[in-house]
Amino acid sequence: MEYHGRKMKNTAVLLLSTPMPLACKGVVAAISQFLIAHNGSVLHSDDHLDSGRDLFLSRLEWDLDGFDIPISDFEHHFKPVAERFLINYHLALTDYRPKIAILVSAYDHCLADLLYRNGTGELACDIVIIISNHPNAKPLADFHHVPFHLLTNPKDKRESEREMLELLGQDVDLIVLARYMQILGPDFVAQYLLRMINIHHSFLPAFIGAKPYHQAFERGVKLIGVTSHYVTSTLDEGPIIEQDVVRVSHRDTVEDMVGKGRDLEKVVLSRAVRWHLENRVLVYQNKTIVFV
Amino acid sequence: MEYHGRKMKNTAVLLLSTPMPLACKGVVAAISQFLIAHNGSVLHSDDHLDSGRDLFLSRLEWDLDGFDIPISDFEHHFKPVAERFLINYHLALTDYRPKIAILVSAYDHCLADLLYRNGTGELACDIVIIISNHPNAKPLADFHHVPFHLLTNPKDKRESEREMLELLGQDVDLIVLARYMQILGPDFVAQYLLRMINIHHSFLPAFIGAKPYHQAFERGVKLIGVTSHYVTSTLDEGPIIEQDVVRVSHRDTVEDMVGKGRDLEKVVLSRAVRWHLENRVLVYQNKTIVFV
Amino acid sequence: MEYHGRKMKNTAVLLLSTPMPLACKGVVAAISQFLIAHNGSVLHSDDHLDSGRDLFLSRLEWDLDGFDIPISDFEHHFKPVAERFLINYHLALTDYRPKIAILVSAYDHCLADLLYRNGTGELACDIVIIISNHPNAKPLADFHHVPFHLLTNPKDKRESEREMLELLGQDVDLIVLARYMQILGPDFVAQYLLRMINIHHSFLPAFIGAKPYHQAFERGVKLIGVTSHYVTSTLDEGPIIEQDVVRVSHRDTVEDMVGKGRDLEKVVLSRAVRWHLENRVLVYQNKTIVFV
Amino acid sequence: MEYHGRKMKNTAVLLLSTPMPLACKGVVAAISQFLIAHNGSVLHSDDHLDSGRDLFLSRLEWDLDGFDIPISDFEHHFKPVAERFLINYHLALTDYRPKIAILVSAYDHCLADLLYRNGTGELACDIVIIISNHPNAKPLADFHHVPFHLLTNPKDKRESEREMLELLGQDVDLIVLARYMQILGPDFVAQYLLRMINIHHSFLPAFIGAKPYHQAFERGVKLIGVTSHYVTSTLDEGPIIEQDVVRVSHRDTVEDMVGKGRDLEKVVLSRAVRWHLENRVLVYQNKTIVFV
Repeated sequence: MEYHGRKMKNTAVLLLSTPMPLACKGVVAAISQFLIAHNGSVLHSDDHLDSGRDLFLSRLEWDLDGFDIPISDFEHHFKPVAERFLINYHLALTDYRPKIAILVSAYDHCLADLLYRNGTGELACDIVIIISNHPNAKPLADFHHVPFHLLTNPKDKRESEREMLELLGQDVDLIVLARYMQILGPDFVAQYLLRMINIHHSFLPAFIGAKPYHQAFERGVKLIGVTSHYVTSTLDEGPIIEQDVVRVSHRDTVEDMVGKGRDLEKVVLSRAVRWHLENRVLVYQNKTIVFV
Repeated sequence: MEYHGRKMKNTAVLLLSTPMPLACKGVVAAISQFLIAHNGSVLHSDDHLDSGRDLFLSRLEWDLDGFDIPISDFEHHFKPVAERFLINYHLALTDYRPKIAILVSAYDHCLADLLYRNGTGELACDIVIIISNHPNAKPLADFHHVPFHLLTNPKDKRESEREMLELLGQDVDLIVLARYMQILGPDFVAQYLLRMINIHHSFLPAFIGAKPYHQAFERGVKLIGVTSHYVTSTLDEGPIIEQDVVRVSHRDTVEDMVGKGRDLEKVVLSRAVRWHLENRVLVYQNKTIVFV
Repeated sequence: MEYHGRKMKNTAVLLLSTPMPLACKGVVAAISQFLIAHNGSVLHSDDHLDSGRDLFLSRLEWDLDGFDIPISDFEHHFKPVAERFLINYHLALTDYRPKIAILVSAYDHCLADLLYRNGTGELACDIVIIISNHPNAKPLADFHHVPFHLLTNPKDKRESEREMLELLGQDVDLIVLARYMQILGPDFVAQYLLRMINIHHSFLPAFIGAKPYHQAFERGVKLIGVTSHYVTSTLDEGPIIEQDVVRVSHRDTVEDMVGKGRDLEKVVLSRAVRWHLENRVLVYQNKTIVFV
Repeated sequence: MEYHGRKMKNTAVLLLSTPMPLACKGVVAAISQFLIAHNGSVLHSDDHLDSGRDLFLSRLEWDLDGFDIPISDFEHHFKPVAERFLINYHLALTDYRPKIAILVSAYDHCLADLLYRNGTGELACDIVIIISNHPNAKPLADFHHVPFHLLTNPKDKRESEREMLELLGQDVDLIVLARYMQILGPDFVAQYLLRMINIHHSFLPAFIGAKPYHQAFERGVKLIGVTSHYVTSTLDEGPIIEQDVVRVSHRDTVEDMVGKGRDLEKVVLSRAVRWHLENRVLVYQNKTIVFV
């Protein structure tokens, strides 16, 4: 299986954290040895030491060809190492294609961008459903052969959330809010904690809330930005995955800012989604480490 | 007189605003004609139409060689045009070297940068005094032959402000707060309204107030920024002249952010000061237009 | 007619150049007066003085509502002013929608981007034909209801160019090479001089010619870039309209560079096309002035 | 010992490369175990796998407090590991302050910047000599208490190089060409291979050679850049350590470009020097890996 000449990988990724004093005295060696003992070749390792929090954090990727533990038994075999070093970890398989749902409102530029990237293979996932409170993205969804669901009663927030939960079922790994302009309630958010990525059209924490480009215009800033973050129960306060900015001047009207912002939103949201899908994002203390 | 091969100019600059309906029907023509009638060659003109506010704003530069009105009589001769179009304007002469005072605290990187730029001729001004609540910049000031004044009693804010006002006298055109870490009182600010430029080490309006790099670190942003603005009575809320950002990652400690920020602060503050000195900044509605 | 709240404008744009000594002594006044005399309100004017070449260059936009000269008679009425100041000018009407043709090969990301932007009204033009040497963009063209033409014999360059000239006819105002991977011959280029925009996937003049991302990878640069330019008879040497760059590191494979580059290509090409369509680009001395 | 609150570290850094098939099967584990066996705590490790070249490359930093091998015996003890995995390595001690020489010509902005950074502790090195073919940096050198040597006969290149080699002696670890405007001969270069860092004022490989800002102005590029690289015998072709760019427009004269470039040059050169001093740069195949 190929994408622009790149072979599909059969690897496993471990995202882990462990208290520092233990880490320094051997966690790298212990994990490396464990993998070698089972014929696993390490392809990439990237680590970070947060000396303020006394935490060692790492991303490790190894080749599963020849690895002699069935991945379903990994937890069992790895347990002694994990317990000895108090390792908190998440295991992921590169050849698993996560199922994602996209929520969208009237503006569909981020949706169109994600669908295009998915079509070229840039995003290794299956987009299983698009849910919207607005009908206009339906032709786009049809063109990409993705089921499109229009919310029955978009004005009723509670009802809509119930409807969405039902549609999403148990199988969706990640929800992407691609300019979905409804604030989701805490119950909904809780069900998809660290599994729901939003794009906010400001350089957070500046301009939280509604109409950030208008706020930016009023304040007279010289750069505008956008932020992609995991959704938590506090509006626009979740762990930031990626941000970027673009220069504006007095010549830019609010509409110009909206236009420039659109280009940023597409790129920043797609980066965040891709990094999440590639198991590069480790969250702790309401911050992210992105291993790129 | 030369600076890196660039001749000193003998030109005049007009920064002006006028209500739109009038502007469209002839303000450009009227001013152009006025200048031509007096043998003034327009070198640059740059204008902007704020349709939201119904204002026409412009910067006009013309050659004074051959201009047949003594500049001291400009107001008198220009009056009919100004009154007809309700023009609000500021006139400046390029060959006038503004006198500036720099206020600084313990961190002297912005000061060092401004002094170096002044030495090479990049900033067309005379730095007449450096005032500090900390002694460590004295050797630097001496090296550049600029008078250095250590505040007598830096803990006493009111007393210090009185002392500064006395030192500044009537002649200082612009105060630059080059990482001066004391908040100035409203009376002091009022005396130098739109004539005092600060560098704040965050991307305003994010992280107003103290220790912005620490705030940025805690929030986990992926870019940090700095902002240069005119000082008004509301902390960090004045008209923004320039901003810039730099990328950070989880690998950057607060100290790394401080280091990266230093490089931004120097560049952004010096740009703001230069544009002010070159009469490129027009303030209105708590925003700036920078004609560059 | 609206696009995201923005009204369609009924204005005229003049892009002009004139020798300096004349310009300074009154061209601005003369043109302003000419417009006022015919009840034309200037909305924007932006000028530039190239002192090295002794040229005055300007872009002027005025409201046609109330303008009392039929635009077809403009040349006739403007002649005295143009002759007096040796003005070289181009007149354009904002409400005219240029007809554009897009040439594309196997990679269709720029095409998809242009079609999307055209659909939302961001690009004020009619895409009248898509021509390709590769069939895969057909469904995309169909979705956007744009005629798609597959070249009959893409290996035969001369034959293909003849075929294209026939397809294009007399009506096409602009050709966009949206990653069209054939070098066009001088005769073809001559027909569309300054009316054909290309996107080259390097930061020109670095990495001219084939496989620039591979060249960049081999050289070990720390940023990669893309360039949008008018096509001239010398490969990749035409006047540059826009460029941008993105950071890369040793972690980026050639494929990663290609991926990062794609995002740049879309944004940079669409900016160049939009500026051209908005009559903001003035070419002289193999360089461009972009009045933004 | 502190710098802005940061303690001086007592650590060792290993920069290494090893052929891939060996690497995957255990080099990380073997090195980790070796360090643990000698009570060395790994603080940071960062690795990279160049699959095109089949090379594993890594930077490893560990705490020397408690490490039970005298560092002078490291080679001896590490030999079995190095031989087994064919490890090519460079060992450096963080508490060693490299001795650096700066070569400069008439433009002293990079010199001033490096001296300032050195004074604040940002660069962990001792600047032992400044050599110039121009007298104007002498007062600056004096202010920073660094010996300044004016070349006796700057027009005579061979003589100057002989003079410099004598001045540099055996002790200088790194030469920084801070806008030194003489091309150095191959013999001189050979003596300081990968130990001499230059700043070139263009975005290489664009605009190699003399007067790059003039070349950039003529070509009409929309961004200008600078490049810091190790000097090799082929002009401007050495391994690139860092690059950056800044936007320009038609309003920028060559002088403006020179001014904007100065700010880039300072930042880019100082980054390259700092990374070299912190043993973060690994060179191979005429490219660099910068472990940041």
